[in-house]
Amino acid sequence: MLRNVAAGDLSPDAALEKLKYFAYEPVEDFARVDHHRALRTGFPEVIWGLDKTPEQIIKIFQAMSAYPCVMATRIAPEVYAQLQQHLELHYYEQAQICATTTLPSVPRYPGQIGIITAGTADLPVAEEAAVTANLCGFKVQRLWDVGVAGIHRLLNNRDIIAQSQVLIVVAGMEGALGSVVTGLADVPVIAVPTSVGYGASFNGLAPLLTMLNSCATGMGVVNIDNGFGAAMLAGQILRTGEKLKDLQLSEPN
Amino acid sequence: MLRNVAAGDLSPDAALEKLKYFAYEPVEDFARVDHHRALRTGFPEVIWGLDKTPEQIIKIFQAMSAYPCVMATRIAPEVYAQLQQHLELHYYEQAQICATTTLPSVPRYPGQIGIITAGTADLPVAEEAAVTANLCGFKVQRLWDVGVAGIHRLLNNRDIIAQSQVLIVVAGMEGALGSVVTGLADVPVIAVPTSVGYGASFNGLAPLLTMLNSCATGMGVVNIDNGFGAAMLAGQILRTGEKLKDLQLSEPN
Amino acid sequence: MLRNVAAGDLSPDAALEKLKYFAYEPVEDFARVDHHRALRTGFPEVIWGLDKTPEQIIKIFQAMSAYPCVMATRIAPEVYAQLQQHLELHYYEQAQICATTTLPSVPRYPGQIGIITAGTADLPVAEEAAVTANLCGFKVQRLWDVGVAGIHRLLNNRDIIAQSQVLIVVAGMEGALGSVVTGLADVPVIAVPTSVGYGASFNGLAPLLTMLNSCATGMGVVNIDNGFGAAMLAGQILRTGEKLKDLQLSEPN
Amino acid sequence: MLRNVAAGDLSPDAALEKLKYFAYEPVEDFARVDHHRALRTGFPEVIWGLDKTPEQIIKIFQAMSAYPCVMATRIAPEVYAQLQQHLELHYYEQAQICATTTLPSVPRYPGQIGIITAGTADLPVAEEAAVTANLCGFKVQRLWDVGVAGIHRLLNNRDIIAQSQVLIVVAGMEGALGSVVTGLADVPVIAVPTSVGYGASFNGLAPLLTMLNSCATGMGVVNIDNGFGAAMLAGQILRTGEKLKDLQLSEPN
Amino acid sequence: MLRNVAAGDLSPDAALEKLKYFAYEPVEDFARVDHHRALRTGFPEVIWGLDKTPEQIIKIFQAMSAYPCVMATRIAPEVYAQLQQHLELHYYEQAQICATTTLPSVPRYPGQIGIITAGTADLPVAEEAAVTANLCGFKVQRLWDVGVAGIHRLLNNRDIIAQSQVLIVVAGMEGALGSVVTGLADVPVIAVPTSVGYGASFNGLAPLLTMLNSCATGMGVVNIDNGFGAAMLAGQILRTGEKLKDLQLSEPN
Amino acid sequence: MLRNVAAGDLSPDAALEKLKYFAYEPVEDFARVDHHRALRTGFPEVIWGLDKTPEQIIKIFQAMSAYPCVMATRIAPEVYAQLQQHLELHYYEQAQICATTTLPSVPRYPGQIGIITAGTADLPVAEEAAVTANLCGFKVQRLWDVGVAGIHRLLNNRDIIAQSQVLIVVAGMEGALGSVVTGLADVPVIAVPTSVGYGASFNGLAPLLTMLNSCATGMGVVNIDNGFGAAMLAGQILRTGEKLKDLQLSEPN
Amino acid sequence: MLRNVAAGDLSPDAALEKLKYFAYEPVEDFARVDHHRALRTGFPEVIWGLDKTPEQIIKIFQAMSAYPCVMATRIAPEVYAQLQQHLELHYYEQAQICATTTLPSVPRYPGQIGIITAGTADLPVAEEAAVTANLCGFKVQRLWDVGVAGIHRLLNNRDIIAQSQVLIVVAGMEGALGSVVTGLADVPVIAVPTSVGYGASFNGLAPLLTMLNSCATGMGVVNIDNGFGAAMLAGQILRTGEKLKDLQLSEPN
Amino acid sequence: MLRNVAAGDLSPDAALEKLKYFAYEPVEDFARVDHHRALRTGFPEVIWGLDKTPEQIIKIFQAMSAYPCVMATRIAPEVYAQLQQHLELHYYEQAQICATTTLPSVPRYPGQIGIITAGTADLPVAEEAAVTANLCGFKVQRLWDVGVAGIHRLLNNRDIIAQSQVLIVVAGMEGALGSVVTGLADVPVIAVPTSVGYGASFNGLAPLLTMLNSCATGMGVVNIDNGFGAAMLAGQILRTGEKLKDLQLSEPN
Repeated sequence: MLRNVAAGDLSPDAALEKLKYFAYEPVEDFARVDHHRALRTGFPEVIWGLDKTPEQIIKIFQAMSAYPCVMATRIAPEVYAQLQQHLELHYYEQAQICATTTLPSVPRYPGQIGIITAGTADLPVAEEAAVTANLCGFKVQRLWDVGVAGIHRLLNNRDIIAQSQVLIVVAGMEGALGSVVTGLADVPVIAVPTSVGYGASFNGLAPLLTMLNSCATGMGVVNIDNGFGAAMLAGQILRTGEKLKDLQLSEPN
Repeated sequence: MLRNVAAGDLSPDAALEKLKYFAYEPVEDFARVDHHRALRTGFPEVIWGLDKTPEQIIKIFQAMSAYPCVMATRIAPEVYAQLQQHLELHYYEQAQICATTTLPSVPRYPGQIGIITAGTADLPVAEEAAVTANLCGFKVQRLWDVGVAGIHRLLNNRDIIAQSQVLIVVAGMEGALGSVVTGLADVPVIAVPTSVGYGASFNGLAPLLTMLNSCATGMGVVNIDNGFGAAMLAGQILRTGEKLKDLQLSEPN
Repeated sequence: MLRNVAAGDLSPDAALEKLKYFAYEPVEDFARVDHHRALRTGFPEVIWGLDKTPEQIIKIFQAMSAYPCVMATRIAPEVYAQLQQHLELHYYEQAQICATTTLPSVPRYPGQIGIITAGTADLPVAEEAAVTANLCGFKVQRLWDVGVAGIHRLLNNRDIIAQSQVLIVVAGMEGALGSVVTGLADVPVIAVPTSVGYGASFNGLAPLLTMLNSCATGMGVVNIDNGFGAAMLAGQILRTGEKLKDLQLSEPN
Repeated sequence: MLRNVAAGDLSPDAALEKLKYFAYEPVEDFARVDHHRALRTGFPEVIWGLDKTPEQIIKIFQAMSAYPCVMATRIAPEVYAQLQQHLELHYYEQAQICATTTLPSVPRYPGQIGIITAGTADLPVAEEAAVTANLCGFKVQRLWDVGVAGIHRLLNNRDIIAQSQVLIVVAGMEGALGSVVTGLADVPVIAVPTSVGYGASFNGLAPLLTMLNSCATGMGVVNIDNGFGAAMLAGQILRTGEKLKDLQLSEPN
Repeated sequence: MLRNVAAGDLSPDAALEKLKYFAYEPVEDFARVDHHRALRTGFPEVIWGLDKTPEQIIKIFQAMSAYPCVMATRIAPEVYAQLQQHLELHYYEQAQICATTTLPSVPRYPGQIGIITAGTADLPVAEEAAVTANLCGFKVQRLWDVGVAGIHRLLNNRDIIAQSQVLIVVAGMEGALGSVVTGLADVPVIAVPTSVGYGASFNGLAPLLTMLNSCATGMGVVNIDNGFGAAMLAGQILRTGEKLKDLQLSEPN
Repeated sequence: MLRNVAAGDLSPDAALEKLKYFAYEPVEDFARVDHHRALRTGFPEVIWGLDKTPEQIIKIFQAMSAYPCVMATRIAPEVYAQLQQHLELHYYEQAQICATTTLPSVPRYPGQIGIITAGTADLPVAEEAAVTANLCGFKVQRLWDVGVAGIHRLLNNRDIIAQSQVLIVVAGMEGALGSVVTGLADVPVIAVPTSVGYGASFNGLAPLLTMLNSCATGMGVVNIDNGFGAAMLAGQILRTGEKLKDLQLSEPN
Repeated sequence: MLRNVAAGDLSPDAALEKLKYFAYEPVEDFARVDHHRALRTGFPEVIWGLDKTPEQIIKIFQAMSAYPCVMATRIAPEVYAQLQQHLELHYYEQAQICATTTLPSVPRYPGQIGIITAGTADLPVAEEAAVTANLCGFKVQRLWDVGVAGIHRLLNNRDIIAQSQVLIVVAGMEGALGSVVTGLADVPVIAVPTSVGYGASFNGLAPLLTMLNSCATGMGVVNIDNGFGAAMLAGQILRTGEKLKDLQLSEPN
Repeated sequence: MLRNVAAGDLSPDAALEKLKYFAYEPVEDFARVDHHRALRTGFPEVIWGLDKTPEQIIKIFQAMSAYPCVMATRIAPEVYAQLQQHLELHYYEQAQICATTTLPSVPRYPGQIGIITAGTADLPVAEEAAVTANLCGFKVQRLWDVGVAGIHRLLNNRDIIAQSQVLIVVAGMEGALGSVVTGLADVPVIAVPTSVGYGASFNGLAPLLTMLNSCATGMGVVNIDNGFGAAMLAGQILRTGEKLKDLQLSEPN
């Protein structure tokens, strides 16, 4: 490709563009930092902490030190205790997230992500979503403990639904909150089943199936307990507005 | 035992009582009509039509001809066509039930069973429940197509919930209606998951799990598509009042 | 609504009624105490202890201090040890329940809940049901260890079945006791599968399926190990009985 | 409420607003047309054809005749044959959809929904999504048969990914296409597992689990074979984009 | 080996013994008749009819024409219609078995196999067991329709349990009959779950799990609907009894 | 009944017989010792140790102190350590069994139970079977580690198969040993799937399904890891010989 | 790229190489013929017939008419009847395969694929593998009906195992044949579970799990009933020899 | 057999060959060392460490001391600590393997096994494969952390795919890497699903199903986390290649 540039067949900018696309950086022999992903999405780099050793996490943080914000999810307190001996990190305990920066004081994007939980026990997953969204530059509105067994708790907070441009519903046990919220809302809903429950919950299978079979339209489902993934999808949806704005101007459609 | 009666050790009444308890009658060599059940519950005798041949169903009906009311469930129209050539029966097509009597014009028991469905497709199961309850002598109030995707349809009919002493909630797909109704009600709720749906409904597994994991209290679950069983349980619950009445008088507790 | 009252369109009593209906109280930002539920059912307020931190449980107890009785389920001994440093509680260890009051010495409701277990290992779940029912004001009769492998143990105690107006059957392993008891009884039966067993019990899936497929009619099933839910449903059934008694007098039907 | 309007406590506009919110219309006794949903979303009214009789579908169509566009999904050719004897409908056979209008020639919304399938056998589900999106007023770009077994087929069409503001990925068998597309895209991705496959596909369970466990972020999953739901969610996302554009102008955030 | 015989290293009888052990005969290129099995067990040769074409079944019957009795299971009436055009067979329709001989009028072995069903719908499986056992030379006692929902039907027939040396219990739905019978019996019990039922029976999974988790000891389980296998195991048990009698005499142990 | 005896309607022996049948003894309020079971089977009384507290086990042992032999299964070493402070017990560590007597030096019954394992890791389950059978008075022949991956290890030990009157096959992982042994044997085979394995073994589901689907006839299956149940069934089978002996003499059949 | 060639930066050969790599051809708008795959593997182009309409299959065949051999799998006889009206095809009924050429009379590759089935009912899957392998140019040796219930049938044919360089084992029901063959063989084994069986086979889940959990090493598993995939993998393995030959010469290692 | 040798019917070499075939050696009473397997495959003897006690592992190592190389898998660090007090072993911690020899410095076989992982968390399973293959004498090329979410990481390393004669793909979560690699490769691919993931991964079920349903041909699947089995199959494939080379020369086919 560089030869093509030399030959004038490819502009340096286009080459850079292409280069960016395929950039990644090996961390010793066990990981590959994907620079492309960061350039593409504008979001912080994320390290999935589960099933990695503290040593591996530390090395990947170090390999990414040039990024403005790097975060890691699924960091238990005892793992954080080890990390902070080698790295300067901010820790959000309920969310089990640590990051190289604090939460931004002003959102970088317009719009608001409403995050709703069925019960108190769903908080860790909801906080994973909330902290991730905050770190990515989005405004978050929390609404905790409004499960369908007392539907008025939700109905009385309908304004939070109305003021958000995308909603994340976090619910374990029977997970019915997803359908009810989607039925009330006029925006995309992301449903996160949680492993909260026991017995025939089968570790979150029950709310997962509930949400997949929802009779309400306009809902997408992510993995059990995947608050992080819900926030990333919500962020992608809010960024759609930005893209459509430019589109509108350039393309009359 | 009869010898004991002869010896005066057992009163004829007590003997009769015991006899009743253990009475059943063989139908050729393939079935055993359980007279005890009828005497015990006061409900019509019921023939489960699934997996039986029309010939077997006809013979069991004939063996039970002394009963005031005999009904059979899961009778497809083509099976009914065969039955009616040998028996005088009333057929309730949507409920797939046929019976030797018509529905009683006046309920035999106080109270009302409210039956609520999430969608139109749940009707056959709900009708199985409704017709069964009617044949057993109970008053039924139907409320169809009030699924949680449009929660106001349910909220606007809250009076039906308030006027019933027991509720049957019939729902397929995600089955969330059970939790919402139970959260609004102050009476026992019987939840019937249905096989309505597709894909990750897994033939009713999804609403079954939803209902079993309900965060609302006061709900019992029956088998997928088991409208009949729900009606029988609802009937038992309404009959509890009668028993408590006598109890109240005789036993100050 | 208050304006309507002011305008005379709504009586203060009706307004109060409505207000009650939608009352709840936030506990910091993680929970919402549902006053409506208590007003509606007359039962104690219940805190589900699983997946909550001791700190959260303590704060919810404190937010509910105005209630005559508040109870929490799924409280392990070590959690109770933490709670009792901040709260005055009564602890029922086998049931893993703690409550702000002792068990009432006299039942508040007529009728009796019979609770039957298949084996000794099912006791914790059965005790959760029994203590819950007692705290709710119901009379409980226990019948432990009468599994179907020795059917005479059950048959010889048929009087306990006969004297109860609602039955709770608690069984793990194959869970066959539910069907047998329902076949013998003439009252509603609530079946609680337990996770007692090993191998192909799959943590309670086996007795759950057994109970859902029961060929005996008049049984409702709750979640695996859900002794609490069974007791709440049994209570609703007995309370329905009471309502029906009054209904009988006022409404000839 | 009307009394309140009469009393001047409620403005007619606010009353209208409220009325709209709770409007629905019963169709005989088996269905409830949810006017609220249509008013809220601006999308056509949709009848889910599965598990409904042709008679029921016809009556619901008739009850909705005032709407500019009504569509029904899961309409097999033989059901359509019955419907068209009573109704004037347009039928999209591969998508199994019929509608009271033709596809709009010009999109009503800016932006484009890219729909990508893994194989030819996934077409019916993808067409359900495409026709639904078209009827709702969105521009659709199709990309068929680019499964991961020949990854260059996808890579060579990366421009379609780049030009869409939201993507729908339809894949059966192992469903890996979802992750690969999400890894290449910078927009929200909706993954639709299909029941295409055999053996250990378990009717779509395999691609469903694949998509839920995706290591790529920014993907939401809908039910197996639910092309309709994917289109509705995609539409909500594009409409959210529009709202955000306005938001940007009015609210500096 | 034959050389060894010639060399006198192996007696002709021992050689015959060995030959028998490894004898089988190919049927064209698609099957291998296992003479060894017949010689070893003394039972009729059995052809499993499922998933074989009528042509294949006919050819295997013909290859086995030297045997005193050959039987085939899972032969639907329409397959039998084809077979009888080429072969002289006796057909037992409810059992879906056809055989080259009639049922022996006198048992070849002492003892009795009691076969018990929960319901009328379990008859086809039970008859497969009964006819198989009869063809193998065993005496069978049938006891149909004594499911646990009416336990007195079983208790009143306890003599049949007492008179059998091995029991086969055939039950679908919840399959609880297996545990109850084993608790009453003092002989080996073979439990056959059936696919009779619906919903959460999951095609026989429910009774299968019930029987595997039985709290009663002395029960072995065979595959769902495997009446044939149950009869073969029952036959092996009775034949073992015979061997032990002789053993007692020759070996004081 | 006693009155009947007094009246001469029932002989004292018959009364005793009946009494025995219904005898059981409550242990405080949590268990019911089933004397009937012991009288009926002649086997030791067995306490299932899992899910019981050491205190409960001790009390049940004490309530059974009149029996010649009482055994308890699933007793972990640390539980045994607690038991032996209050009871005189013999402990078989690999089998996790403790008993009030030692293994009998001479079998009480003719015949031999062959116990075969696929691998070394299956030993605990196999030893549970072996020690149980020994305590019940049966002769046991062990054959360990002859899994099908090296089929000659099994074939070279065919004499052990030939010399046993009943076989127990204990296998985890794929559990194929059951079919191979049954194909070689001419006696009843009891297959015990074990939870040995990982991944797609799903805690023993894989060998369980293997054994249930065996193409070899004459095999019954017990629960995963249920060595105890296999031994009890094997014992019942060997006792069949005794019963047939008497039968042979009294009944020519 | 072509510009680069023109500029001399890329040799025409290298360009051709690249072109080949990314070549595919659209068939109308529903399929993409992957020329790359054919060039890469040297095998015939394959059309997966399941879930495609006859029209689609015909058009794909026509788009591929330049290839020396094109085959389609999962072609039922009635689909073939439609195809042959438009195309000249050879049909292998048991294998449900049709192809544009006959089977090659002489193998194109050294070595032999041994294909072994457990039962006659597994033949369709085994024939799919055999015909596929033949069409791809490999020599196949069939060994049918040697299931483990009569292990001597397999042991007596050990020479077929010894003479093959790769083995395909096709087995339904319990699928134990895979482990036994792998234990006897010294070559790679490909196991194909089939859906042959009933009840707890769960449509092939049982043999699938058996094969995945095999204690014998050197076995890879393909999807249930996937005879085609097994043949393709076997072919890849035999082609390894060719590659190693060249390697050996050029690279001493 | 020896007599046959004496009689001249069997050459001593052939006898030795046969003897070898059936050789194994008991280790006390709990294990049987299979000498045959080692002789047959030329690979090291392998001890599966899971579910064995350290004492058992030590004794089996000692019984195998005559072998040039013995290895044990699934040896946790704490077990290794116990082993090394009695045995001289080399430990590969990430692979959890210990062996009596070091890794050979020069491969014993031509060809290369490429091992590819989706993520860092898959390393333990991949290392189990790599160390096993090394100990067996094969050359291994590692390629870590090239999951499909950043497909360019894989595409940029296509040379590693091109240079290997067999590939092992190790992937958890959605396991899509298997299909993508197989689509790019022209050699046999062995897919190893891992239990890396959470929620709907169901301990590796998700990637297992993904790999079994792959639309790419030429892939075989092994058990979840079975890096060892993948290496053994890869080794068999490379050894088959060697045999085919010779075959080519001696047999024109």
